[in-house]
Amino acid sequence: MRFLIPLISSSITSGHYRIISRLLSAHSTKPQRSTLPPFFNCQPPSMAASEESLRKALTEKQSAVEAHGNAVRALKAAKATKPEIDAAIEALNSLKLEKSSIEKQLQAAVSGSDGDGTLSREAFRQAAVNTLERRLFYIPSFKIYRGVAGLYDYGPPGCAVKSNVLAFWRQHFVLEENMLEVDCPCVTPEVVLKASGHVDKFTDLMVKDEKTGTCYRADHLLKDFCNEKLQKDLTISAEKAAELKHVLATLDDLSAEALGAKIKEYGITAPDTKNPLSDPYPFNLMFQTSIGPSGLSPGYMRPETAQGIFVNFKDLYYYNGNKLPFAAAQIGQAFRNEISPRQGLLRVREFTLAEIEHFVDPEDKSHPKYSEVVDLEFLMFPREEQMCGQSAKKIRLGDAVSKGTVNNETLGYFIGRVYLFLTRLGIDKDRLRFRQHLANEMAHYAADCWDAEIECSYGWIECVGIADRSAYDLRAHSDKSGVPLVAAEKFSEPREVEKLVIAPVKKELGLAFKGSQKNVVEALEAMNEKEALEMKTALESKGEVEFYVCTLGKNVPIKKNMVSISKEKKKEHQRVFTPSVIEPSFGIGRIIYCLFEHSFYTRPSKAGDEQLNVFRFPPLVAPIKCTVFPLVQNQQYEDVAKVISKSLTTAGISHKIDITGTSIGKRYARTDELGVPFAITVDSTKDVTIRERDSKLQVRVSVEEAALVVKSVTDGLRTWEDVWEKYPHHTSGSADD
Amino acid sequence: MRFLIPLISSSITSGHYRIISRLLSAHSTKPQRSTLPPFFNCQPPSMAASEESLRKALTEKQSAVEAHGNAVRALKAAKATKPEIDAAIEALNSLKLEKSSIEKQLQAAVSGSDGDGTLSREAFRQAAVNTLERRLFYIPSFKIYRGVAGLYDYGPPGCAVKSNVLAFWRQHFVLEENMLEVDCPCVTPEVVLKASGHVDKFTDLMVKDEKTGTCYRADHLLKDFCNEKLQKDLTISAEKAAELKHVLATLDDLSAEALGAKIKEYGITAPDTKNPLSDPYPFNLMFQTSIGPSGLSPGYMRPETAQGIFVNFKDLYYYNGNKLPFAAAQIGQAFRNEISPRQGLLRVREFTLAEIEHFVDPEDKSHPKYSEVVDLEFLMFPREEQMCGQSAKKIRLGDAVSKGTVNNETLGYFIGRVYLFLTRLGIDKDRLRFRQHLANEMAHYAADCWDAEIECSYGWIECVGIADRSAYDLRAHSDKSGVPLVAAEKFSEPREVEKLVIAPVKKELGLAFKGSQKNVVEALEAMNEKEALEMKTALESKGEVEFYVCTLGKNVPIKKNMVSISKEKKKEHQRVFTPSVIEPSFGIGRIIYCLFEHSFYTRPSKAGDEQLNVFRFPPLVAPIKCTVFPLVQNQQYEDVAKVISKSLTTAGISHKIDITGTSIGKRYARTDELGVPFAITVDSTKDVTIRERDSKLQVRVSVEEAALVVKSVTDGLRTWEDVWEKYPHHTSGSADD
Repeated sequence: MRFLIPLISSSITSGHYRIISRLLSAHSTKPQRSTLPPFFNCQPPSMAASEESLRKALTEKQSAVEAHGNAVRALKAAKATKPEIDAAIEALNSLKLEKSSIEKQLQAAVSGSDGDGTLSREAFRQAAVNTLERRLFYIPSFKIYRGVAGLYDYGPPGCAVKSNVLAFWRQHFVLEENMLEVDCPCVTPEVVLKASGHVDKFTDLMVKDEKTGTCYRADHLLKDFCNEKLQKDLTISAEKAAELKHVLATLDDLSAEALGAKIKEYGITAPDTKNPLSDPYPFNLMFQTSIGPSGLSPGYMRPETAQGIFVNFKDLYYYNGNKLPFAAAQIGQAFRNEISPRQGLLRVREFTLAEIEHFVDPEDKSHPKYSEVVDLEFLMFPREEQMCGQSAKKIRLGDAVSKGTVNNETLGYFIGRVYLFLTRLGIDKDRLRFRQHLANEMAHYAADCWDAEIECSYGWIECVGIADRSAYDLRAHSDKSGVPLVAAEKFSEPREVEKLVIAPVKKELGLAFKGSQKNVVEALEAMNEKEALEMKTALESKGEVEFYVCTLGKNVPIKKNMVSISKEKKKEHQRVFTPSVIEPSFGIGRIIYCLFEHSFYTRPSKAGDEQLNVFRFPPLVAPIKCTVFPLVQNQQYEDVAKVISKSLTTAGISHKIDITGTSIGKRYARTDELGVPFAITVDSTKDVTIRERDSKLQVRVSVEEAALVVKSVTDGLRTWEDVWEKYPHHTSGSADD
Repeated sequence: MRFLIPLISSSITSGHYRIISRLLSAHSTKPQRSTLPPFFNCQPPSMAASEESLRKALTEKQSAVEAHGNAVRALKAAKATKPEIDAAIEALNSLKLEKSSIEKQLQAAVSGSDGDGTLSREAFRQAAVNTLERRLFYIPSFKIYRGVAGLYDYGPPGCAVKSNVLAFWRQHFVLEENMLEVDCPCVTPEVVLKASGHVDKFTDLMVKDEKTGTCYRADHLLKDFCNEKLQKDLTISAEKAAELKHVLATLDDLSAEALGAKIKEYGITAPDTKNPLSDPYPFNLMFQTSIGPSGLSPGYMRPETAQGIFVNFKDLYYYNGNKLPFAAAQIGQAFRNEISPRQGLLRVREFTLAEIEHFVDPEDKSHPKYSEVVDLEFLMFPREEQMCGQSAKKIRLGDAVSKGTVNNETLGYFIGRVYLFLTRLGIDKDRLRFRQHLANEMAHYAADCWDAEIECSYGWIECVGIADRSAYDLRAHSDKSGVPLVAAEKFSEPREVEKLVIAPVKKELGLAFKGSQKNVVEALEAMNEKEALEMKTALESKGEVEFYVCTLGKNVPIKKNMVSISKEKKKEHQRVFTPSVIEPSFGIGRIIYCLFEHSFYTRPSKAGDEQLNVFRFPPLVAPIKCTVFPLVQNQQYEDVAKVISKSLTTAGISHKIDITGTSIGKRYARTDELGVPFAITVDSTKDVTIRERDSKLQVRVSVEEAALVVKSVTDGLRTWEDVWEKYPHHTSGSADD
């Protein structure tokens, strides 16, 4: 998984383009030979434009106010007439009012679309997080020992939501597509992560407080500085604002040196102590350990689950009858030793990933079930729209694929399946978009990448990455292990192919070039067909040619006896190739956190004196599907409640019985806060009521049927609307409104 | 989890007593004040007795052969008559035959109950493991890099079995008992594992090859030496054999020094090089790492999941409405950096644990659902039977509890539930026993411990531990964190209690005892009621008493003005106490491996020319529930197969479609090897056959019903017998027998 974290998470304006390639670096040697794309060529986003003009207007107005102030003073000094002075003062005041109005507009522009957007988002988050922590959806780990940053436990309801999400993931992906699920260890020997690039490149740049030694992420400090300036200092010029924005946009492309220079230039110091900071240096984000007792076998806790699949490719391909395409999947823990975790559940040091590696012939990326998703329409945010400052827009998936916006059918198929997965979990489709990676975000080998981003109070959060990683991973492990991780297409009959054969004559080359022989041999072998044939012609006519060896940086003379170049015809029975891999990779914890926010709302209590919290989880993910309450404390009702509880257990429906004497309204409020979709209230020994959480509507159902009705809705065999139509309605006389 | 590994795993005779306390040491400060129980007082097991007499007989016979050989030589030297010499040689040969017969018996006795028991066990294991590895039930991790000892992947069918086992665990324990499931991180800060005792005591003794530095587990080397001698060297005397057996039996009680002395005494060298070995020293089995970038926060990969529950006790108790009893549960990865892993899946460096911590009032260990398990009858192996060399025997659970063999009802309830869990998974009840810990295996604080042991080709393997750990864990974390982890019983009305108050007068004690004051104060406060009241009486009558302070090792004079002793009446509104915890802890990987062995069998192919492999997994755990085959390659049949496949997916039944042209017999054999219980063969467009794996019986069912019939049996709503009765039988004309 190449898990990306929005670096400019506070800028939640959808039109804002972001460049997020930091964590990519683990897999993605950044493009070495290409220059960065000119993504600043188009107009900046309209909102940024209005902000820019506001800053300009503010500067001008400020000058006007100053000039006018001087004029007033001059009039006073010149003892002008009162009407004259009054008129000048009035004009000055009017200018000040205009300036203040521009200030307000600018304040609004930099802090979000409406004036107190940021504030209300924070208040919403606070309310949701309070409820989540109080009801133990999650708990800071090792709390009694004052916790550890970036580690969280799921308490009972959170753990249930998580296992429901994972069960649905298995149903929706693994079972539906017949994927080969595997389960590999977290402890991983160094060689594997050396091959994948993590040992060398899975790093963040860090700075240290030079006196206390406290560590900070260098880009975070720079980012916080820029954001703070942009949002709180209205006096900076439009040019300065543009510069800071440029820094934010290019943050992830900055080298350690450039980042250090900026930190120095802006005079950024340690946030806690104001001490000077060290130069930035890379810190590897993997938890390191040692395997076995000798201390000689370094190992790491895996930073993603994908490598466990890649190293098993050969066996899995065989298991699949040596046929492509096929997908392997894995759910498991992954670990990243973040420098300074923040944003609660969104950036943690240990998390659950669910990853799919779909292996496919690079010459045929069609998908047999593509037609099932082709008509889905949802928010997509292609590269071009981002670069021109536009917003995400609704696009029919089939159109995006046919126009080439999405690179291929299989990638499109998975984008569609991810959309269905997330929305069925309860993610709001209007706060879900698929954002294409910009060219500089992608690894050079990647064909195309899309992130499913979900909007929450922290901004747009990348929750699923869907990437066509071409043959990179399998090749890396083939090279390192020496085991070919390839597939073969058998031809129905042998095909004749013409192949160029370049055979350097090492003896002659050795005599001629001695120590440089190897460089010359490699350069000869690396010629493409055209170059080789030109050399062949030249050698045949002239007997000798000048040949440029790039690793030597000079021309060398090649004679006819030093190399044989020919074209040979061969019969081939199969085509052997390294499969491409298309990788949908799910950050389960992030999806769950966004789901919490999308499901949370408050509504007034009946008395109207307080706000009650509700999670509108669909039954599929609700931690408990049903509660059972005797209306009043009474042995008969309790017995009925126990009978229903037993049927629910048999039916596999998680539920809770509440026989406390608390008022029924309070008991409803308590379970609404856990997102329990249904409540069965026992108020007779023959039939009972079933209440739906969000509508608060109730039906009457016989004791025998109660568990089955709940099961049928929970299993998705029918909807609450079906139930509402079929059974008699109940008008509550109880404390619940 | 206190996970115990049979150290004498090759001794699979059920009457053999074993002492297994090594890993306990992590949690269990060994009894400091009690002496070890006299577990050698009773007679050794009968088989050991027969072995002993055989060794004696062999030694005698050997002497007789030698004496007779000398006699024959003497006769020859004395030129005795031919008949005399012939008679003597005949007698000698007959003695040799007798000796050889005793040797054979002894060989059989030391290697198992029947002569080639060991061999056939190994052959069975080899066949099972071959199939398991070939069909990717599991794979040595990172195989293309030559793997890492003790790390395994589950491939597709193994992974499916594992998730079925875990889903059933959740259903059988968490849902059924309304347990509070939590999900805590693997990365754990040092302070937590310091409190639990793992940092100091979770160790194995290790020795190093003095020249190469290769590490070995000291007890393994000694154990291997003893077993090798006992099994292969028939010339050792009965006394020597008894000594070696005593070493094996007490292996886990040996200190580093004693272990080192034995290694020296027996001249044990490094197995690979024969180099001398270092003295044994402790090696901590936890994988160590560092949390955060500073390198100043040591952490470990958790060695068990239980601690995550204990540290959350306070929140969970609150979540449960401040009521006892309740249980919390957790499924997750745990890690042990074994010195030299062996026994395949049974001793690995990373594994899945499923643990339950049932918190209960120490004064009331009854269980409301105890009556549901009271009549279960299964193999139990109480302490007494082990100490007297008897075998496990069938005991009714209710009797074991009422007789006090099992300490309390709740412990008994969980033993019963574990029995049901394991047997429903497919564990053979005749190769499952519950073995009680011997007194020296248990931690001093533990009230009682039972292990569910499953017999497989490696011997009896501990797969589940069920322990009453009293208040130890909660107290340890209360002490370390300063956060009281307690429960309270509220009295319906306040109770008047009389409390003894011992108030040492520190000023006087300080004057009298100076530096020893603290010891005297502590000794005074530690008096029980009887002692205190006696002192009070004595002080009142005599004004001074002699008082023994054990930490000073002497009597000191206590005067009346040095301590005030009184009884005070107090009103109490509640009783505050540390709950006891009863902990069933499941090694999921071990259970699965034993399940693999118990499910595996071979049967001849129809032609009788080869043995076919079958796993008789119950539908509940089968990795794939059903296969769908068109009988012949044919578009119509393929279409029907796809329709059925779609219904199976909708019904949530994992299945596989096989449209290769392979013979139907071969396709059956292939899926039998994966333990697929049902196969749907399409041989018409109207109805199809369903074949059951073990009986190979087939019924005819309509295309529409096929998926539902499979689902109903898979979900346990009906049995194959029900299906067999209801539907027309099909006599196969196909290649399958």
